[in-house]
Amino acid sequence: MKHTIAAMVENKPGVLARISGLFSARAFNIMSLTVGETEVSDVSRMTIVVKGDDKILEQVVKQLNKLPDVIKVIDFKNEEFIDRDLMLVKVNASKALRGEIIEIANIFRANILDVSADTMTIELTGRETKLEGAIRLLRPYGIKEMVRAGVVAMSRGRK
Amino acid sequence: MKHTIAAMVENKPGVLARISGLFSARAFNIMSLTVGETEVSDVSRMTIVVKGDDKILEQVVKQLNKLPDVIKVIDFKNEEFIDRDLMLVKVNASKALRGEIIEIANIFRANILDVSADTMTIELTGRETKLEGAIRLLRPYGIKEMVRAGVVAMSRGRK
Repeated sequence: MKHTIAAMVENKPGVLARISGLFSARAFNIMSLTVGETEVSDVSRMTIVVKGDDKILEQVVKQLNKLPDVIKVIDFKNEEFIDRDLMLVKVNASKALRGEIIEIANIFRANILDVSADTMTIELTGRETKLEGAIRLLRPYGIKEMVRAGVVAMSRGRK
Repeated sequence: MKHTIAAMVENKPGVLARISGLFSARAFNIMSLTVGETEVSDVSRMTIVVKGDDKILEQVVKQLNKLPDVIKVIDFKNEEFIDRDLMLVKVNASKALRGEIIEIANIFRANILDVSADTMTIELTGRETKLEGAIRLLRPYGIKEMVRAGVVAMSRGRK
């Protein structure tokens, strides 16, 4: 079972180590973890996607809430939310193949960030299934390098 | 001094805790840390942006290289690279203000992901300065919520 949670935390050294330690101590498999600034200075927001049992996750959320550096935890279990990942992919692309790669990029509304004599680097955002669809189409050209930022999530609507 | 490094690591529980622990033990201020899948299964790629002294960073890179779960470390110090962050922002937007927000989104090539009676949620990718420019323009409307994935980086060209 896949869970997405967000945690607002104090932006201090060591917070990330403590929180990722909490998950690894429970042998929770973190599928994605991101941390970034928020609209409030000194407050960071983490988005964590984990696979695991509902009950154990509930305990982890409780333990997160107990950490002094954690301000607020949102479990997206019971609400509609938006989730997005960012990916950069460098593919082999000789001059003759550039047109095909550009077509694929357009289908996925991706941006071409860089071109060399025999490579192209593409930026793509979307849900996991979309990113995987793009990877499937790009793989035959030869993926030289790939990096993903991880998932960010936010509740839908005015909430 | 700001440094961007990438580390290819084994995708195992506890790796993130060990690596973030390494940085916090040195009181390195992590400005951004992301971890995601790569083109190779069981290999994750981390992108870490830190502020700190050149010499201490060199030591940290050495220590990273010594960790059994770390496969390869790239320090972007001496090469041209692309760096991008992903941000979701939910702003207050009554019906009368939607047009203005859409204009701002278009200027920054942002995507509108969600609209409610009095909010809009925008997705934006780019370098830090671009994201900060967008935040500056959106702040007067009232930012209700904001989340950033953190920086991903890749060398330019065919390398």
